Amino acid sequence: MKKFLDKDFLLSTETAKELFHKYASKKPILDYHCHIDPKEIACDTQFENISQVWLGGDHYKWRIMRSNGVNEKYITGSATDREKFQKWAETIERAIGSPIYHWSYLELKRYFGYEGVLNSETAEEVWTLCNTKLHEKSMSVRGLIKQSGVTLICTTDDPVDTLEWHKKIKEDKSFDVQVLPAWRPDKMLNIEQSSFVDYINQLSKISNISITSFAALKKAFQKRLAFFISLGCRATDHALEYIMYAPSSESEIEKIFAKRLKGNVLAKEEELKYKFAFMLFAGKEYSQNDLVMELHYGCKRNNNTSVFDKLGPNTGHDCISNFAPSGEVADFLNALDSTDQLPKTIIYSLNPNDNAIIGSILGCFQNDSALSKIQQGSAWWFNDHKTGMIEQLTSLANLDILSNFVGMLTDSRSFLSYTRHEYFRRILCNLIGGWVENGEYPYDIKILSRIISDISYDNAVRYFKFKL
Amino acid sequence: MKKFLDKDFLLSTETAKELFHKYASKKPILDYHCHIDPKEIACDTQFENISQVWLGGDHYKWRIMRSNGVNEKYITGSATDREKFQKWAETIERAIGSPIYHWSYLELKRYFGYEGVLNSETAEEVWTLCNTKLHEKSMSVRGLIKQSGVTLICTTDDPVDTLEWHKKIKEDKSFDVQVLPAWRPDKMLNIEQSSFVDYINQLSKISNISITSFAALKKAFQKRLAFFISLGCRATDHALEYIMYAPSSESEIEKIFAKRLKGNVLAKEEELKYKFAFMLFAGKEYSQNDLVMELHYGCKRNNNTSVFDKLGPNTGHDCISNFAPSGEVADFLNALDSTDQLPKTIIYSLNPNDNAIIGSILGCFQNDSALSKIQQGSAWWFNDHKTGMIEQLTSLANLDILSNFVGMLTDSRSFLSYTRHEYFRRILCNLIGGWVENGEYPYDIKILSRIISDISYDNAVRYFKFKL
Amino acid sequence: MKKFLDKDFLLSTETAKELFHKYASKKPILDYHCHIDPKEIACDTQFENISQVWLGGDHYKWRIMRSNGVNEKYITGSATDREKFQKWAETIERAIGSPIYHWSYLELKRYFGYEGVLNSETAEEVWTLCNTKLHEKSMSVRGLIKQSGVTLICTTDDPVDTLEWHKKIKEDKSFDVQVLPAWRPDKMLNIEQSSFVDYINQLSKISNISITSFAALKKAFQKRLAFFISLGCRATDHALEYIMYAPSSESEIEKIFAKRLKGNVLAKEEELKYKFAFMLFAGKEYSQNDLVMELHYGCKRNNNTSVFDKLGPNTGHDCISNFAPSGEVADFLNALDSTDQLPKTIIYSLNPNDNAIIGSILGCFQNDSALSKIQQGSAWWFNDHKTGMIEQLTSLANLDILSNFVGMLTDSRSFLSYTRHEYFRRILCNLIGGWVENGEYPYDIKILSRIISDISYDNAVRYFKFKL
Repeated sequence: MKKFLDKDFLLSTETAKELFHKYASKKPILDYHCHIDPKEIACDTQFENISQVWLGGDHYKWRIMRSNGVNEKYITGSATDREKFQKWAETIERAIGSPIYHWSYLELKRYFGYEGVLNSETAEEVWTLCNTKLHEKSMSVRGLIKQSGVTLICTTDDPVDTLEWHKKIKEDKSFDVQVLPAWRPDKMLNIEQSSFVDYINQLSKISNISITSFAALKKAFQKRLAFFISLGCRATDHALEYIMYAPSSESEIEKIFAKRLKGNVLAKEEELKYKFAFMLFAGKEYSQNDLVMELHYGCKRNNNTSVFDKLGPNTGHDCISNFAPSGEVADFLNALDSTDQLPKTIIYSLNPNDNAIIGSILGCFQNDSALSKIQQGSAWWFNDHKTGMIEQLTSLANLDILSNFVGMLTDSRSFLSYTRHEYFRRILCNLIGGWVENGEYPYDIKILSRIISDISYDNAVRYFKFKL
Repeated sequence: MKKFLDKDFLLSTETAKELFHKYASKKPILDYHCHIDPKEIACDTQFENISQVWLGGDHYKWRIMRSNGVNEKYITGSATDREKFQKWAETIERAIGSPIYHWSYLELKRYFGYEGVLNSETAEEVWTLCNTKLHEKSMSVRGLIKQSGVTLICTTDDPVDTLEWHKKIKEDKSFDVQVLPAWRPDKMLNIEQSSFVDYINQLSKISNISITSFAALKKAFQKRLAFFISLGCRATDHALEYIMYAPSSESEIEKIFAKRLKGNVLAKEEELKYKFAFMLFAGKEYSQNDLVMELHYGCKRNNNTSVFDKLGPNTGHDCISNFAPSGEVADFLNALDSTDQLPKTIIYSLNPNDNAIIGSILGCFQNDSALSKIQQGSAWWFNDHKTGMIEQLTSLANLDILSNFVGMLTDSRSFLSYTRHEYFRRILCNLIGGWVENGEYPYDIKILSRIISDISYDNAVRYFKFKL
Repeated sequence: MKKFLDKDFLLSTETAKELFHKYASKKPILDYHCHIDPKEIACDTQFENISQVWLGGDHYKWRIMRSNGVNEKYITGSATDREKFQKWAETIERAIGSPIYHWSYLELKRYFGYEGVLNSETAEEVWTLCNTKLHEKSMSVRGLIKQSGVTLICTTDDPVDTLEWHKKIKEDKSFDVQVLPAWRPDKMLNIEQSSFVDYINQLSKISNISITSFAALKKAFQKRLAFFISLGCRATDHALEYIMYAPSSESEIEKIFAKRLKGNVLAKEEELKYKFAFMLFAGKEYSQNDLVMELHYGCKRNNNTSVFDKLGPNTGHDCISNFAPSGEVADFLNALDSTDQLPKTIIYSLNPNDNAIIGSILGCFQNDSALSKIQQGSAWWFNDHKTGMIEQLTSLANLDILSNFVGMLTDSRSFLSYTRHEYFRRILCNLIGGWVENGEYPYDIKILSRIISDISYDNAVRYFKFKL
């Protein structure tokens, strides 16, 4: 029996161990997609206690606390941080087989040096240990980033964001990790939302362009995107219910846009036409500026209206949507490719059944403009676990070139989540090591180490063209 | 090489063996969902021969006999029981990798003590052995239930059922296993079926309520449900093509209902609106009465019309339906939750691709009213095999709290099927034992044994609130 | 660590090794579905160099070359064969985990005796070795077929094909491998294509039937099919977006057909009605003639229009389509079965999520007219890899009778692809051997060897009723 979470955690073969310890673990971390708040980096926040770091905004943990019958008071409610931590300790003990179990223990071990078990009885001991440690300088936000070996972070930012914190971080020469904005114009896309018109007004103001037409919106898009690029933006992101293909004419889009600006509700068909036109425009702009387009789809959000009314979005009440015609994904990409304006693209679906579907689409649009120009993103959100990663990696190896994969990202709101890169690399090394030990690939450490280094770090640097 | 079906069948590691032999195998059986006939328990039926038990109503076996080219005469037709058994013996030999192979051998071994192989040559020997054994008192229906360690059984019953056999069993103090009715009002739901109006008349009669409106139907529902509850009913069940979301007004439903009562055929949209209204009402009643709502969906039934005309339903001619928008599942549950009337719910899809989808929905509706209030049901029907179970358990562990799972049920028409609980527990112990041996969870026998006991038995007692 | 691709490649247990080396590897090859050109067999083509064989028409390889950033010039363009080979050598080194990696090395080893590694540095050595070898007589098309142990090949042919090459091969008594035509009337089906009317004219000419109605088309179908059958045709094939169920009247179909013949564009609904009527007619003809109907669905073709305009179809720009209602598959089969005119059918979906769905449909239509009359085809195209095969075999074992499976086919355009049968058999033997070693099936070499031989070869002979 292997000891729990020992140095060879998830590494079953000698080749896996060699690949991880000699190569994967030596590479820095490039976190090209996450949801951390740049202000916390700029201010170099120091956390008061472990509940703030762990339970403050982590809807993954909230979900399983609710599953374990914990009252909302101890999750997002008025209970003290210590009380919440107790409920979390009682919950995690039960979370056998969950990735959150592994993430939590990796964080306890790597950042706090805790080697024991967290449960209702040890909660007090862990609470004290972690909080003492959290007051050390090395455990500030910047300390955590540095000790994790991170060289570059892309946050996720709205076009109306002033990016003031990014500027401050850039100007501060005492911190050498690049923190770049990423462009996420979801609020320009989501024309059906009640807040759309207000948002357009905000955008008008910050861009200094009076947005009274779709043509004007496009100009504002370009102006703000140029500003993002001036601060180092290389990545863009879109959250879509599904990737749609709904062509129409320019004049039709202008009519739809005008109708919506007047406060009218659109028909579903109009919404889809607008969104397709917007995505097509966006894709062409990214191509023009050599940016990477990340597409996240397959999610139905905010399914619990009574909780939503109390807590708002991103509280753990989202689910997988299984409506996503693969034909429309292909047709959307083709619409961009047919005018030679398809940017580098990373596709993520929340539905794990889409692995092979996406893998088969990639190959239709690859060309010599990049190594695996069209990528399937790493196992996302509800799939971000051992089986999900193995399935995504295996599918990608079957259908594209795994060696060209841009690899892992945290997608996290927490500064302790960099251990997810370690988790991913262990799984990757174990998978590839297993193939080698099973005679499915030659034991040639020169090429194997290059593949591991590429997927762990180097591919992402090259693909996004980061300056490192 | 492991011996076929030895004591460590399906148990690959020492921890798996310990968990199964010391804990899982010691727990009684709670069969909270099955299709056995309570009359056979009340009468304590003694079977004449093994074909009656095995081939009398088992459409799983019928299917693979047909696949093996057996003429229908030897399946559901006029051949003698001995002839049918011969054909079955010839078939099972070929059924490598099938769960039915394992089930059959577990039953042969556990109930008949047969250690050999069943094939065309040994058929006569097995026939004689089993039939001799079947005449022993310990092999009556009650004998089989008792020797299997069953403490409680929920049958599946129609609202118009008089439950006379349940009453008789309850009154008979010589039999201490609880046999409870479960409420399955599919015939009230399936408004499109030609027999609907006749069924409503039957329901009117037994409920003594003249059902001339949907409002009256609801009263009859409540009256009959109260009767079921008076006989111990804790579980309800629905078979749905898919879980739909189709809101409308009360008056609209009354119109649809009236139209149908007059013998008219409904439009698809009307059917869906009625069904949604019915399910919403039903869910609220279950919440009110603290019953568990089981939802089975993703099945297209009776696909072979020429066989259906001869043999009727449940003869092995059903298949997986892959139309089931996950968004409507979430919206249906939310419609109940938004008025705080969502009952405890167990969701089963016949489509194995729905595992992660369901897992992601559960978390949107969990709260402190129960441990994992919304559950994903055990791998169902076409998925009730080793890989299907491993996938369901792994997905549940990834996305909810596996430790809270209410576990296995037979879903069977046979009194030999209790070995499926053993099959499930072996797979469960092997999965969890494997994680522990691989260093993915600490070897802490106190918590591990509790998890195993909970999933094997204790969770179901608590979740349904059975009095045991 | 196992040596790369040694004699026990993919065989993990002693039983697996025994089953493969003693039984599976001894069986001949029956390739009942492929896309090779019969002309090359008739002329006994000798290839000039390895690029011609490997890269001449293999869109699998083209895809991953594009993924590896290779310029189209070196794929389908004007570069020399030697230059193209260099780019391929650079690509394959990176293709860890890809089935194409394994296929290529199996071919290098089995046909060229090359034991080394192919990469940018060894490319010259391999190029020379292979080309020298390719000039040997044993490496002509017929030589390759004979040394591979092939006894029968079904090509894929259009109804308007004169089958002249099939005739020539048949007449040539020096070559004893059967090369039979297979009937693929896709161009009669695809009424929406711009070339449909021209095709109907071609068909009119070759059948000597003036096709001015659907009734006449059916006559031409029958006449040409009879001609195919006279040359040994036993298999038919259809490529469908999805298997549809869209019943209508004969007169409606005649109207649709007439409308299209006049050059009009059809509504989607009309197209589906025509296609359903055509498929229904075709299925009945196959039943009447005891032919096997192969149905391939779930593919969206030619997704990259700019490449399509340059290179045409079958260049590696197809993807999985995930629109395929399982209900319509069942209803289509039932429409044939209800008049007792359902032929033997093999169902292939390009969507791996359809494995269990298809498995559940099979059982609805099995009867005593054949062993597993309705079959799920071997893992197809994007699924034709180790995990895809394991999943297909496991699913089939769970839901039907694996022992009755008609097994592998190459589906290939290349004469080196017969090693894919070896690849399949190794995976099959490892799967079954693993079950036996794990105590899930008795070690009874008599029945096990029969199962292996059946799936490797004998089932296909019996199922198609080939005369061998």
